[in-house]
Amino acid sequence: MKNTYRKIFKWGDKREESLDKGIVKLLKEKFDFSDKDFRQHYLFGDEEITLRKACSLPGDTINRLVAICGAENIDKSDYARASHAMGYFFSELLLLRKGEVNTPPDLVVYPRTEEEIIQILQICNKENIAVTPMGGRSSVTRGLETPKGGISLDLTRHFNKILEVNEINSTATVETGVYGPAFEKQLNNFGKGYTCGHFPQSFEYSTVGGWVAARGAGQESTYYGKIDDLVLAMKVITPAGIIETKDYPASAEAWDLNKTFIGSEGCLGIITRVTLKIKRWRPQNKTFASFIFKNFESATESMRNIMQAGIGKPSLFRISDPVETATGFKIKGFENSFSDKFLRFLGYHSGERCLMFVTVDGDKEYTHLIKKKIKKIARSEGGFSIGRKPTKEWLEQRYSSAYLRDPLMDIGVMTDTVETAVSWDKLINLWTAVRAYLEKREKVHVMAHISHVYETGANLYFTFLSPMKKGKELEDYLQYHKGLVDTIHNNGGSLTHHHGIGRALAPWMEDEMGKTAMGLMQASKDYLDPGGIMNPGGTLGLR
Amino acid sequence: MKNTYRKIFKWGDKREESLDKGIVKLLKEKFDFSDKDFRQHYLFGDEEITLRKACSLPGDTINRLVAICGAENIDKSDYARASHAMGYFFSELLLLRKGEVNTPPDLVVYPRTEEEIIQILQICNKENIAVTPMGGRSSVTRGLETPKGGISLDLTRHFNKILEVNEINSTATVETGVYGPAFEKQLNNFGKGYTCGHFPQSFEYSTVGGWVAARGAGQESTYYGKIDDLVLAMKVITPAGIIETKDYPASAEAWDLNKTFIGSEGCLGIITRVTLKIKRWRPQNKTFASFIFKNFESATESMRNIMQAGIGKPSLFRISDPVETATGFKIKGFENSFSDKFLRFLGYHSGERCLMFVTVDGDKEYTHLIKKKIKKIARSEGGFSIGRKPTKEWLEQRYSSAYLRDPLMDIGVMTDTVETAVSWDKLINLWTAVRAYLEKREKVHVMAHISHVYETGANLYFTFLSPMKKGKELEDYLQYHKGLVDTIHNNGGSLTHHHGIGRALAPWMEDEMGKTAMGLMQASKDYLDPGGIMNPGGTLGLR
Repeated sequence: MKNTYRKIFKWGDKREESLDKGIVKLLKEKFDFSDKDFRQHYLFGDEEITLRKACSLPGDTINRLVAICGAENIDKSDYARASHAMGYFFSELLLLRKGEVNTPPDLVVYPRTEEEIIQILQICNKENIAVTPMGGRSSVTRGLETPKGGISLDLTRHFNKILEVNEINSTATVETGVYGPAFEKQLNNFGKGYTCGHFPQSFEYSTVGGWVAARGAGQESTYYGKIDDLVLAMKVITPAGIIETKDYPASAEAWDLNKTFIGSEGCLGIITRVTLKIKRWRPQNKTFASFIFKNFESATESMRNIMQAGIGKPSLFRISDPVETATGFKIKGFENSFSDKFLRFLGYHSGERCLMFVTVDGDKEYTHLIKKKIKKIARSEGGFSIGRKPTKEWLEQRYSSAYLRDPLMDIGVMTDTVETAVSWDKLINLWTAVRAYLEKREKVHVMAHISHVYETGANLYFTFLSPMKKGKELEDYLQYHKGLVDTIHNNGGSLTHHHGIGRALAPWMEDEMGKTAMGLMQASKDYLDPGGIMNPGGTLGLR
Repeated sequence: MKNTYRKIFKWGDKREESLDKGIVKLLKEKFDFSDKDFRQHYLFGDEEITLRKACSLPGDTINRLVAICGAENIDKSDYARASHAMGYFFSELLLLRKGEVNTPPDLVVYPRTEEEIIQILQICNKENIAVTPMGGRSSVTRGLETPKGGISLDLTRHFNKILEVNEINSTATVETGVYGPAFEKQLNNFGKGYTCGHFPQSFEYSTVGGWVAARGAGQESTYYGKIDDLVLAMKVITPAGIIETKDYPASAEAWDLNKTFIGSEGCLGIITRVTLKIKRWRPQNKTFASFIFKNFESATESMRNIMQAGIGKPSLFRISDPVETATGFKIKGFENSFSDKFLRFLGYHSGERCLMFVTVDGDKEYTHLIKKKIKKIARSEGGFSIGRKPTKEWLEQRYSSAYLRDPLMDIGVMTDTVETAVSWDKLINLWTAVRAYLEKREKVHVMAHISHVYETGANLYFTFLSPMKKGKELEDYLQYHKGLVDTIHNNGGSLTHHHGIGRALAPWMEDEMGKTAMGLMQASKDYLDPGGIMNPGGTLGLR
């Protein structure tokens, strides 16, 4: 197989290479697409990779890196360099499809040990070579671009071992280059059976280190917590030295330095190992519920009341807004079924009604009680129980929706997701404002859901599809995206709930955080990375 | 009433001015005290305060401060300066009792507004005047000493308002100088009724700002969380500028700067307001349980199993070790009662048995289920249920044990508490090692409890009483304390779980954190406080 640009961005396992009937129907209805539109190959990216920019590191430097890591762990091929030049933000995917990899790293390095990383950083710090740590590279924030070239330090090849599962403490210590499924499977199979409970949409293609560095959240974070809540201890190798925190259950030893590295996006150093909280894996106890609400307002109010009721927390907890709900029904061919008619008869109308998915994890009696209490609260807000099945079905395809990205782009449809966190009192207003902004576009399909829920607020996650403006794809997208982030920012939403900042959201950071906060972050970077070599060039809005 | 040193350290409400019969009996038994020993007044501190060191600030500077805050909010009296020269660590209490206030602040200032604080910091930064922010001053870590004089900035007079209770978001925004009881009472009485759930031992005499700055924990933190978990947003005024974080329920906007100020102990700036999570106050739903275990090992194992069972969490969750359990029974006159005999008949022997206190908060059905599940797990580890009463009684006097400090010191008994956090797998070993160290002393009474419990570990809280070495009280104490902290540090315990570091534990910080971590913290301070004026002189091990 040729080393094409397409090989870089295409999912490895070929799921969802084509669009199913429901999506085709939706695109025809919304965008007036004809059958011909589905047959085009748009910016297919199937040219062989040829980088214009050669590796610019001196031979001496490369020799020293080879001496450290072994020649087999240094790759300067065009494919390795192009694939380690960026992540999967929409603008990056466009560039890959156009074959425009303009600032690739000079080398990809796969260190074998922490000692090797220390030596690599010493060399790079001395010779002013950029170092960008990389895991699964599923960044959607331009967090992994390599504008200054240098080294892409890939941890997935050798840093993928579980170092300890401690059943007494209920913790696992793991190297950060391990992928989600390998980590989770080993936990499931260890001793009495454990789970990390961290299942981001990118689960199959992301690593533990990426979860921590980009401050992610899993689909069941409402119960298991965001990665912020799961990390007990870590080891970080920085140009200035090593920081290793301890696995105390809590502490008042000055401020919590773990929290300085969670979300540091590779700008401060390389997180090589982390100790995470784990829980007993009890799939047999998992309970499921699904509800339909008359509108988004009553569904969110129900979520809020459930979170504030003092009844424990659901695990998966999710509502789709009316368009996302209707889209799901359409794709599943549910429209005009008997159930659809029955729901309409009951007052749950398409275009207004909203789906809610719920699971509860833990002890058996606990999960049953929580489910019972959730049902009661949901009903009091007009929620109609539609059984276990919709939630179970959603879980079976929980990682799949991302796979639509490629076949949609293949036919010239722009698709992106943008997410935010917001307090309850601003949520409906923010949702309304963002939809209004997005829907100003001539042909666009805008869906939203809430998928991470807290006592004090929730996230909002927007997905949009729209035909690309051919020939001006990038400018068009960037302009649309800028207005979207402005709308979120001006309506009280955070710049991100779990994707991170990267370079895509960096321009908003100073206005969001304030000058003093940015200065404090820069001072931290300047101390740990005095040469400015760690993921340099604007990530987080830092120098 | 004369302004004596005693007035500074004596509790305001005169509870527990004398020792009750049970304590007297204990001291006689353990330390061979005679009635005469109880009649002495040892280092009573009832001399009138006269400071040798006069206010050394230039008249011009004072005039400018008066122009900012008003003359009534600037106090240079000896009493004000002496009372704002330190906290209540054992060594500080000794110094107060001896009338040795050698480095008082030059002035006590009570700013009225954030704008005034900004102006004060500008003046102090320019003129290199130390600023130590103060709340309830209940520090037990030498966190509030003023070795460089300067200004003690007291927030309790004017920064004591609740700015907003947001019932939609379940949050309260509050000025940081408010005391615990005033804050909690206003929450209880607001709207549907709320609670912060944060009840440290110092509750009555500590402020919200102190909780945050010293990274504290309340007695019910197992359910409500440590202060780290409660803070959503804050405003901090630093010499370099203002940092104001937002009340998002969660975020991935770089790293969490709230966590840099929680535990900063006044070294980075002045936290003027915080937004805290609150919960519905449902005292009518609170359930209570008490158990007795055959030994400390089975009691801790039961705690661990309860925390890891996936059944939700108790609120108050506490076990006393055998000596603390026996001491409580002795003080209450329980020894040789019918119940005592019955317990012994069942195999729960004095000197081995351990008390457990449990409450559960939340929804009514939820609390009943959690209590039922806890009972089941406790029983499986040999726990014998002794009803609601012991826990209820403990709660009624929950803040009182601290009041024993003064009457004990009045008769020459040294008493101190030292606490740590540790993972489950090291807990019993640490408890054993610390007791062994403490009990090497000739006459000493050593008690311990666990009071903050996590899935991955717990705290350990040690209390000791011992006759002072008269004439060498301070040296003796400091030597004993040093060995105690060394023992904790060498056996895998954190330097502190919730008291903080201050100057008392600063000497261990570099060994505990490592040089790079200390450098990172110093760099953060150097950026925010370039003149080194904020609580200077060694707190947290920083310059």
